[in-house]
Amino acid sequence: MAKVNVSLPQGTRDFPPDVVRKRNYILGCIRSVFEAYGFEPLETPAMENLSTLMGKYGEEGDKLIFKILNNGLGDPKNIDKSRTAFEQALQGRNEKDLTERALKYDLTIPFARFVAMNHTILTFPFKRYQVQPVWRADRPQRGRYREFYQCDADVVGSRSLLNEVELLFIYHTAFTNLGVRVEIKVNSRKILAALAETIGAEDRLTDMTVAIDKLDKIGMDKVAEELSGKGFAENQVNLVREFLSIHGDNQHKLNSLRELLGVSPIGAEGITELETLLHYPGVEKAAPVLDLTLARGLNYYTGAIFEVKALDVTMGSIGGGGRYDDLTGLFGVNDIPGVGISFGVDRIYDVMDELKLFPENLLSTSKILFFNLGETESRQAFQLLQQLRATGISGEIYPENVKFDKQFKYATKKNIPFIAIIGEKEMEEQVVTVKDLRTSTQSSISWNKLAAFNFD
Amino acid sequence: MAKVNVSLPQGTRDFPPDVVRKRNYILGCIRSVFEAYGFEPLETPAMENLSTLMGKYGEEGDKLIFKILNNGLGDPKNIDKSRTAFEQALQGRNEKDLTERALKYDLTIPFARFVAMNHTILTFPFKRYQVQPVWRADRPQRGRYREFYQCDADVVGSRSLLNEVELLFIYHTAFTNLGVRVEIKVNSRKILAALAETIGAEDRLTDMTVAIDKLDKIGMDKVAEELSGKGFAENQVNLVREFLSIHGDNQHKLNSLRELLGVSPIGAEGITELETLLHYPGVEKAAPVLDLTLARGLNYYTGAIFEVKALDVTMGSIGGGGRYDDLTGLFGVNDIPGVGISFGVDRIYDVMDELKLFPENLLSTSKILFFNLGETESRQAFQLLQQLRATGISGEIYPENVKFDKQFKYATKKNIPFIAIIGEKEMEEQVVTVKDLRTSTQSSISWNKLAAFNFD
Repeated sequence: MAKVNVSLPQGTRDFPPDVVRKRNYILGCIRSVFEAYGFEPLETPAMENLSTLMGKYGEEGDKLIFKILNNGLGDPKNIDKSRTAFEQALQGRNEKDLTERALKYDLTIPFARFVAMNHTILTFPFKRYQVQPVWRADRPQRGRYREFYQCDADVVGSRSLLNEVELLFIYHTAFTNLGVRVEIKVNSRKILAALAETIGAEDRLTDMTVAIDKLDKIGMDKVAEELSGKGFAENQVNLVREFLSIHGDNQHKLNSLRELLGVSPIGAEGITELETLLHYPGVEKAAPVLDLTLARGLNYYTGAIFEVKALDVTMGSIGGGGRYDDLTGLFGVNDIPGVGISFGVDRIYDVMDELKLFPENLLSTSKILFFNLGETESRQAFQLLQQLRATGISGEIYPENVKFDKQFKYATKKNIPFIAIIGEKEMEEQVVTVKDLRTSTQSSISWNKLAAFNFD
Repeated sequence: MAKVNVSLPQGTRDFPPDVVRKRNYILGCIRSVFEAYGFEPLETPAMENLSTLMGKYGEEGDKLIFKILNNGLGDPKNIDKSRTAFEQALQGRNEKDLTERALKYDLTIPFARFVAMNHTILTFPFKRYQVQPVWRADRPQRGRYREFYQCDADVVGSRSLLNEVELLFIYHTAFTNLGVRVEIKVNSRKILAALAETIGAEDRLTDMTVAIDKLDKIGMDKVAEELSGKGFAENQVNLVREFLSIHGDNQHKLNSLRELLGVSPIGAEGITELETLLHYPGVEKAAPVLDLTLARGLNYYTGAIFEVKALDVTMGSIGGGGRYDDLTGLFGVNDIPGVGISFGVDRIYDVMDELKLFPENLLSTSKILFFNLGETESRQAFQLLQQLRATGISGEIYPENVKFDKQFKYATKKNIPFIAIIGEKEMEEQVVTVKDLRTSTQSSISWNKLAAFNFD
């Protein structure tokens, strides 16, 4: 055959059947937990108005948004406007006459936009989950794609800590059902705010958190160095050292925190919230770990924050989330607090693939392949197959009467566990020969008894 | 609250929970039939290289493709190239330096691209189904959107008519399961080709078919007029009249066709194929109707063609498809014949909504809402709720201890059928008051017996 002169856009992927099935298995597991907790499905369009997205993800984020060219730019009545708009766009301005729409960059801003547009008709608290692709013009590399799925659940319109409790249980249940052993880390932005306040650096929360966030990678001395380099005084650095030296079980950490930051009202609040969350009835099953270095982004979260790490493979976080005070304020609707979590579907896929955690029965759609051994035989085979399908057994008939070998190869390549043969002899005896390819056992079954056969 | 200064792009839609659930019900029904027939799921990216899409949908189609602006156009090292590329693009040329990628316009070309790229490793016949959104920059109007779902199943790599038979059964089974009464129309492009040949107008197949296609709307005399206007001779027009006057049941039509077009080899082939298809064992259940005016697009199909109309509402076709000889030839890989069908998901949704065919239990995710009547009470309620969730019952607890009324309203607005109340009295007696909101019946149930309660 001729050379194929076609390719996929860089950083995008086709998902062949085995991958779709595995990914759907993950999404199905997560979705059923979301639904058990009363979350409802929402879908938003792939494209948003450019103005909805720009300025929401920081300067770097803005550059990674895929913009869609307006249609009809070359139309004689538009051409002057188009040229002007293009020149403006080259200077980094957003130009409606060139590009009005863009592909969504995450599921959070479109959700905020949806809530802002519909807040008068929604029933609060509004609990939605959303599983859709998003697009980023990032440099593609191993594990980083330009199109990938996000899987989020959020509750908006409620300040109750019970929402955090439920999200913690959702993480625990979903990963347990998937068979992925995880550590769920918990912290509160209020603790970090209290630390900044206590050392007299409320206005430098970001600098402080960025440094703390690196503890895992660079160690305590380098964190101290970085803080000094940024102009933090020795006594400030020492207090941060003390904070980061808090070790032990969750209760011990909370006690130490209370000593160190309990005088700060926001600190006391954060500690009490974490205490409630970490001691909620049944929560010991999820075994959340209070991790004081956990910071998660910087300007977004305002209360409890979460992060999930897989225990048995080296991999970045496979989930994260937290509480935010005012998501829809960006769109002129205030006072709608929220809390949400996200599952990193691509990474969960990689973890499960590496640990071979996918069930074997995902391999094939069909349970049985009927061979095609001629016109009369295949008509009979087809009738039996239709009976099986009507009872919920998926199956196929090879469409052409070709060599036995070729049909056999088709069954093995597609991981179809059973083959069914109706040849001349079987026609005479009104039976079908059924072979289990996994065990190579074979039986002869009357036509009228096939529907009762066990295809497991 | 403040005025919301945000909107959705024209022609796109948010899908709120009730709509997602209804649409997923349709897609789930269709998907399970596809899988019963051994079709496997495939997903391709939202974006394709622009060169993959352009020139595949005709001149009008090309104009409706959403193109994605390259990132980094304004980068000093790109700026000259960008300007040149923009000027070229204004003249209607495809310019890689301005736009390399575009959103997919349908699922067929991306599927062909996938098969062409992977033909050496795929197992043929390859049976895939695909359910994904596509995008068209069409003028939005009632029932026409710029983003909408397509739902296709195709078999490539097999010329056997058994594939057509199976696709016919798939239509029948899927619509039966959805409860939508339909008429499945069948024809063959070979019949139309034979007619053109017989009247000596092989080279004017398109003109002829376009006219014939209008019979339903404009009537026989106007069709004849249109043909004359296009230069068809009187005897040619008369033969078309004769062809279109063929009426009766399928067998009668086939007999008449054999008289009229049977001498043409392609006509004889088409008639024999239709005869096999329309008389295949069991096919009478699907009650396909041979419709000689059915043409479906013009340059694409080469054999049997299908179209599905809903019987109980006025609505364009809700499904269509047919056989094509050489889909991947566009991408330099020849000799891969195929046949496929498509379900019009948006229209099926509208039909089912109008006829009220959606099951009632799609209305709500949660079966039960536990009221929140205080800290101690809600902790107890939460524990019971967790037990229910573990047995597969979806449910919620109202996160805040607010007025009874507000919690009640939440349950009714979300169509949650049961509410559960644990107040002071229930705490003492270790019971929960469960009320079925549909019947207003109420019972008091011991905590340890709640999991055995029937929530249907």
